[in-house]
Formats: sequence, C-alpha cells, structure tokens
Amino acid sequence: MPRMTYLASGVDLDAAARVKDLIKPLARSTFGPQVLGDVGLFGGLFQLQNFREPVLVSSTDGVGTKLKLAVWLDQYRSIGKDVVNQSINDVLTSGARPLFFLDYIAMESLLTERLEALVGGMAEACREAGCALLGGETSQMSDVFKPGVFELVGFVVGAAEREALLDPSRIKAGDALIGLPSSGLHTNGYSLVRAIFNLEEDRSPLHRAYDELGGTLGEALLEPHRGYWPLLEQVLPRIKAMAHITGGGTEENLERVTPRGLTARVDWSSWETPPIFRIIQDAGNVDLAEMRRVFNMGVGMVLFCAAEHASNILRAFPEAWVVGEVAEA
Amino acid sequence: MPRMTYLASGVDLDAAARVKDLIKPLARSTFGPQVLGDVGLFGGLFQLQNFREPVLVSSTDGVGTKLKLAVWLDQYRSIGKDVVNQSINDVLTSGARPLFFLDYIAMESLLTERLEALVGGMAEACREAGCALLGGETSQMSDVFKPGVFELVGFVVGAAEREALLDPSRIKAGDALIGLPSSGLHTNGYSLVRAIFNLEEDRSPLHRAYDELGGTLGEALLEPHRGYWPLLEQVLPRIKAMAHITGGGTEENLERVTPRGLTARVDWSSWETPPIFRIIQDAGNVDLAEMRRVFNMGVGMVLFCAAEHASNILRAFPEAWVVGEVAEA
Repeated sequence: MPRMTYLASGVDLDAAARVKDLIKPLARSTFGPQVLGDVGLFGGLFQLQNFREPVLVSSTDGVGTKLKLAVWLDQYRSIGKDVVNQSINDVLTSGARPLFFLDYIAMESLLTERLEALVGGMAEACREAGCALLGGETSQMSDVFKPGVFELVGFVVGAAEREALLDPSRIKAGDALIGLPSSGLHTNGYSLVRAIFNLEEDRSPLHRAYDELGGTLGEALLEPHRGYWPLLEQVLPRIKAMAHITGGGTEENLERVTPRGLTARVDWSSWETPPIFRIIQDAGNVDLAEMRRVFNMGVGMVLFCAAEHASNILRAFPEAWVVGEVAEA
Repeated sequence: MPRMTYLASGVDLDAAARVKDLIKPLARSTFGPQVLGDVGLFGGLFQLQNFREPVLVSSTDGVGTKLKLAVWLDQYRSIGKDVVNQSINDVLTSGARPLFFLDYIAMESLLTERLEALVGGMAEACREAGCALLGGETSQMSDVFKPGVFELVGFVVGAAEREALLDPSRIKAGDALIGLPSSGLHTNGYSLVRAIFNLEEDRSPLHRAYDELGGTLGEALLEPHRGYWPLLEQVLPRIKAMAHITGGGTEENLERVTPRGLTARVDWSSWETPPIFRIIQDAGNVDLAEMRRVFNMGVGMVLFCAAEHASNILRAFPEAWVVGEVAEA
C-alpha cells in the first residue's frame, strides 16, 4: 500500500489548529471574571459565585434543518445566534440565569469563513445574554454529511437559587398567559418549509420578495431565534412558569408546564398570525391545526403569572399581550 | 398543492414522543438526589451541593467517524459509552468530579432499537462514573446525513473546589509522567482507519479475526473509550496535572499541559504498542511519527506528579507505568 496519512484520509490537524486560533478571540470577547484560564484546555472553567443554594439548569439542542437554509443562502451568522438563543430560552424557563455556552460543529472539512461567521454569531448572542462562550469542539467528519451540509449543536448551563426556581405547581385557574412575540420560525418547522417550497430541488423561492415580509422569503426564514433573557431578567420574581414554544407548537408546550387538572386556554384571536406563517400555510395548503402543532405562529415564549400581575408585566414589555388564561380542565 | 403535513416532510412528532418514553427510565437509572424534577422539561435541573468555592468544568465532543463503524457493525451500545467517557476524561483533567451529562442525537428518522442501545450505553457509563444523564435532545434531520449515518454528541459538566483544581503551573523538571492504558483507539483516528482498510467500499476486513487481537478487527475498533474517573478519584490530591490523549496524539496533548520552558519527554520504549495499532500501521504503511500524532498508541491518560509520589500512584494502579518525565526544554 502507498504510505497513508491522516491528511489524505480527510482530517487536517493543522487546519484544526488554525481554526482554534480563529475562534479564541471571539470566545474571549464573551469572558467575564468568572471564566478561569483560557480557551484551548481540555475543559472550560467557570467559577460559580454569589449563589447560596445553586441549582444548575442545562439544555442542549441543534438548529435542525434550518442549517440547510443557511447553507443555501451562504449566511451563517444568523444560525450562530439561533443555537445560543434557543438553549438559553430553554434554561430560563426554570428561572435560571445563563452562565456559559459550549458549541459543537462538525463539517466535512473546516471552512474558515463559515466557521468565523458561525462563531461570530454565537459570540454576539452570548454577549447579549451575559453568557460566556466557554468552549466547544470543531470536528472534521468525512463521509458523514450530504454535500455542503454540516452539524451545529449548542449546550448551555444556567443557574438559579433553589428557592427562586420557577415552580409550575403554583399555577392556578385564572392565571394569565402572556405571550412574547417570536422573530419568525425560530428553529422549528424547517423540514416542512423545505418540502412545501420544494427547496431541495430548487432554491429560487428563497429569493422571491414579498411585500408583507418587507424582504425575501429567505431573509424571513433565516431571522435568528430571539433570546428572551435580557427582557425577562427584571420580571422573573412575578412569573410562575414559562413555556418556550418549540417543536410541538403552542398548545403542546403549554401542556408540558400546566399542572394536571388545569388547562392553558389559548385565545388564538388575540393576535394576528405574522405574514411568514400565512405565506407558508397558503403555499403548502396546510391545515390550521397542523400549522399550530409545527410552528410558533408568532409567539416565542409564554409566561404564566397571577392575573393581578399581568398589567405590571405588560407595562415592562410593550410588545407582549395576554394570549390566554389557565382554566379548570 | 395537495395538503402538506409535517409527517410527510420527514418529521414524526409522535415518534419523537415515543422515543422520550423509551429514554426516560434509562436516564432515571442514573439519577441521584441532586437531580431535581424529572426528564422531559425544557432544561435538566441539578442541585450543586457540598462545594465551598465551586468551579464548573465542562466539555463537549462527538465520537467522530467511529459512529460509522458502529453503523457498519450495527452495534451502538459501545459508542454510547464512548461519548460519555471521552467527555468525562476531558473534565477530570482539571481535577473535576463529573456531575451530569447531556446527549444530542440527530438521525434521518428515529430508529428505536438503535436509540435504546445508544442511550443504554450512555446510562451505563454515567452510572459507572456517578454522573447523571440529565437530559438531551433527539432530533429528526431529513436530507442531512448520508445513508445510515447519524450524529452523536455529548456534553458533560463537572465541578471541583477552586483550591483543588489541578494546576499545571506546578509542574517541574524531574516530575514523573504516569501512563494509564487505553482500551483501544478510544475515539481518534477512525478516518485514517477507514481509509487504510478501504471500509467505505468494503466492510469485510472488519470481520477478519486476528490471533493477536483475540477477536475481529471490528471488535477491537469498537472497544469503548475507557473512563478514568473511578480510578483517579482516590489519587487526585497527589497529581499535578493530567493530559487526555486524544486528537493530536501523546506528545501534542502533553505539550498542551506542560508549562513553557519545560518539555514532557516520552520514553516510547517503556511500553509495547498494543497489537491493534501495529495492525493499522502495517496495513496502511503509516510512518511511525504519523501514527503517534493520530493515535494514543496504548496510553489513554497521562498523569503528571512529583517523582516521590510516583511509586505510591503506581501501587494504586497495577496497570499503570512511568511513560516519561518532565525535563528542561
């Protein structure tokens, strides 16, 4: 056999070292004094401070096939923000402050510009949430992905005082449901969108402009997942529980939180479905019930609070509104 | 357009719910009293206890293209153990006790038996390390992977007292390097192995038996990444630093830890390279230097300790031996 090398088999260790140098300053831009050491060790170090009885809250998720949209539009910064914000939103449903984030990226071969945009988006979202981009892994995986595609996964750890954890068991009939607007599809429903517009065969629908979107379909679809932490930090003490509206839609995610014997009644007439969802529904002739099971329909996060606190919370968020109430089941 | 559904686009929400039911009891088998609530919320909850000045240490990694071997041999329990143990080994290089683990699995469609074996392997490795399998995500990704392939990523969080963190700056000339044996390739070098044996074209070499392996090539290659936490817990106070031998090989990983001005001198004659590495080297006509840069060559973890502590540590680990020493650079 001719002499075989790792490089010839598809793994470039020197490229991996160069990528680390590229990522370091981006990660460092997110570091506060609680980050010990520097990036590049075997593990990231974060000193937990100012908690008496800390509960760590963690979540992981990928961006699903939204990453195919990013590849087709050759724009990666946006899904970098997605992968951070979706996981931060998950941990803050427990009342936890985000502490640090790690990313995992796997590619056929390491594409420097793509990685720089991805990590740049992650670092921006981390800075906005006061969360450290503490570490990650960039992996070269040959013969795994279809052409152009890659994998992007995020992992976040937050913390809350045990006594300040949000507690859905305190939910009662009569509590108000307050909706916070989503910025678009966030990170759910992209397989359905790809099928409806036949995007695997033809990308041209992405470049079509719509008046009601104020831009192209592709731009609206790539809009990053909104991060709610900076908004919610101040009102946490007045909230009983939160539902992050992801896969499964509004009603299923509300049910995950609502105690047995009660039900979260959504008043679907309380808001107008944003245009992006109506465009998708019309193009795919999708049942309304299916739309509501797959997409967030314009509401990215729902807060549960006592009815007497609703007006106070609404004053803090001019964009929010009452989307329903808790009732006996 | 005919009526379009999420199921027809490749995402089965009911299958996702069934998979959650499958995973729950496996995850619960790893829970201690520090895990609050139950699996299935938006984030996993872990109460941090018995630390005065806790430093959280975290790491993420995939199993690389070892997962292709698992697919070809249709055995998944082993790489479930890999994805846990490799990340635990990373965080324990800081002196941290593993606390909890989260997994991310992405597949074209959810294959129940495969998921059960994967999560079963993860739960087993978590129990061995006293680490909670706190949560995870199982994602359906159509049109991303080549046929049969999937993605598997792990995240682990550990903790150490700040004053007990391993501190490589205390490494001095004359310190001993103690090697702990690996169980095989662990999770590095599989792209090279696939190329050498031309496995993308023909899987038959995996079924060839070798006397020196005491089994087939495939069995030796799938041997799970060894987890060192249960071994090391007792000797941590006598160790200055640790290097987990992963991508880049022994010397590069030792350099990551060794302070400037010093060098970690490996005595390659102090052990016999295990047969699996010799078989790979011969089959691929690989340079010895390249072998040492890609594979662990039989040593999975290297401990740095003062020379006077070496014999004490060696007594605790009958399998360990002195693999070198620290010298002036």
